[in-house]
Amino acid sequence: MATLSEVARLAGVTTATVSNVLRNTQKVKPATVQKVQEAIAATGYRPNLMARALAEGKSSMVALVLPDINNPFYPEFVRVAERVARHRNYFLMVCNTDERPDIGRAYLHQIAGTLADGVLVLHTGISADDINALKTRRSPIVLASEEKVDLADQIPHVVVNFHRAGEIAGQHLLTLGHRRIGVIVGCGLEGMQVGRLEGFRDALHAAGVALPDAVIRNVSDTVAGGHDAAVSLLEQHPDLTAIFCTNDLMAYGASQALADRGIRIPQDISLIGITDIQLAKDMRPALTTVALGIEQVATISINLLLDLIENPTHEPTIVQVPDPVLVVRTSTGPARSGAA
Amino acid sequence: MATLSEVARLAGVTTATVSNVLRNTQKVKPATVQKVQEAIAATGYRPNLMARALAEGKSSMVALVLPDINNPFYPEFVRVAERVARHRNYFLMVCNTDERPDIGRAYLHQIAGTLADGVLVLHTGISADDINALKTRRSPIVLASEEKVDLADQIPHVVVNFHRAGEIAGQHLLTLGHRRIGVIVGCGLEGMQVGRLEGFRDALHAAGVALPDAVIRNVSDTVAGGHDAAVSLLEQHPDLTAIFCTNDLMAYGASQALADRGIRIPQDISLIGITDIQLAKDMRPALTTVALGIEQVATISINLLLDLIENPTHEPTIVQVPDPVLVVRTSTGPARSGAA
Repeated sequence: MATLSEVARLAGVTTATVSNVLRNTQKVKPATVQKVQEAIAATGYRPNLMARALAEGKSSMVALVLPDINNPFYPEFVRVAERVARHRNYFLMVCNTDERPDIGRAYLHQIAGTLADGVLVLHTGISADDINALKTRRSPIVLASEEKVDLADQIPHVVVNFHRAGEIAGQHLLTLGHRRIGVIVGCGLEGMQVGRLEGFRDALHAAGVALPDAVIRNVSDTVAGGHDAAVSLLEQHPDLTAIFCTNDLMAYGASQALADRGIRIPQDISLIGITDIQLAKDMRPALTTVALGIEQVATISINLLLDLIENPTHEPTIVQVPDPVLVVRTSTGPARSGAA
Repeated sequence: MATLSEVARLAGVTTATVSNVLRNTQKVKPATVQKVQEAIAATGYRPNLMARALAEGKSSMVALVLPDINNPFYPEFVRVAERVARHRNYFLMVCNTDERPDIGRAYLHQIAGTLADGVLVLHTGISADDINALKTRRSPIVLASEEKVDLADQIPHVVVNFHRAGEIAGQHLLTLGHRRIGVIVGCGLEGMQVGRLEGFRDALHAAGVALPDAVIRNVSDTVAGGHDAAVSLLEQHPDLTAIFCTNDLMAYGASQALADRGIRIPQDISLIGITDIQLAKDMRPALTTVALGIEQVATISINLLLDLIENPTHEPTIVQVPDPVLVVRTSTGPARSGAA
């Protein structure tokens, strides 16, 4: 659904002006009012209707527990999940565990079945045992986009095909003639992003290209982690023609390390990530990446949670989101001549 | 307080390994256990203690209502506020209004005095009247870092000196010899970031430098807004030697517009922002900016809210945070020769 900013942008006015038009403050010139009303119609912006239902108490609260609100994946997920929840007359509260499974567990105990009618858990490292211990509260808990999925857990899961994402990244670099490729693998609370690495390795293997351990760096999934790993790769393997990062945030860090050294992307080194966060589009050169479909994952996940709240007899469910897709931007190009 | 990632980084291991050490899983080599324990000691990471208190119910819930979780200022604020709250045995839930004052109002009605023992409100465009209407609930509401402060409102406020921030930005560019400067002013729910612009204008005025309306662009406070405004300024005023943005996010957008046109920062055009979000440090060239002290603002704001919860007889309070400070990085330099 459209935001006030989108309406303002389309109408060529400030958000304060849109707000004044919505409140009928009479401060706004008729011509401007018309422009704003046209923009509201064009964007489908809906003032007040949802909010009124929510304020009148025809609504419930659900919670989203996530590990690190500073990692831009999560705000993008929150934005979508909050809108979908609101359309179904639910408020969404967000609980940031600061990467601490113990805090995540404490949040679950505090809110599941009491403050929140259901909880969506993202990458927090909370164990299946902890989640199963809350089953008696009859408040559904859904896990989304976990790196490792254990189907025996009987907890509703929304599953992303991370292996396929790595495979797509590998195939793209191979097609461009890259053979000497460095890899930066992120590590979060659930362990390494191993599925992505395995998919990448499988793609290279199928083409007869080796991926020696020496060109793989395991780091924390942050800008700084990507930066430092790229520095190390560049120093020890100056013959690399491409770097694959298992997440965009690390690719952003790697791009800084390259920029600081005057290494051109993609002429000297190609760079590819996974996820397609907003920063991938915004950075220069814009990042080629394998899009996981944050919007789809968030929509499917929150809808599954709300379905389980509204239909508590629902069986535990595994939902697979559509496969990732390659998004080619300017950070990848042919392997530099003479390099292969 | 330290995160698991910071411990892992210092110990040179993955966060999964740190997690295993904390859980005594016996999977980890003794030498690694020692490295991790040293890193825990060095960082001051405190596992479990807080979480245990929280899980045992010796805790309360407070809420932070904010307009746009995708604007990186807010996640940085959340991270600090959540940690401070946790240290005082409070959970922090985050409510994203999606830039809609009506949704913000609905959240306030739903949570103030019921789900949450107090609410911190950030830039949501919720009116003082709406907030005063909730006074009977005896649940304190604190406004933080508003662009416009009306002291007559009698609502507790945490005030940032935005005028001074603009002034500092202006003085810095003047010192570097800039006289023809474009300005990009952001607009959020509370109207334009006018205080920042006025401070900037005052600095220029004091030095006898004019700031014609023609070089000022009013846009939404987003990456796209900054990008488009910079394109317009560059087309219509090729003689500019510097651009001042009232927020870092727009400066990031402006830097893309410059990069896309092969315009060098700072040799051809200097660029300065306000706030000092993480992206200001991460972008290349790194952004010179006027730091508002997100950590201080968040800490002071949440502490004021918790003080008011614990001492309800407390008088309405206005707290001024320390003045902003200039952070010089590589995006500003002397005005290009022959330009003045």
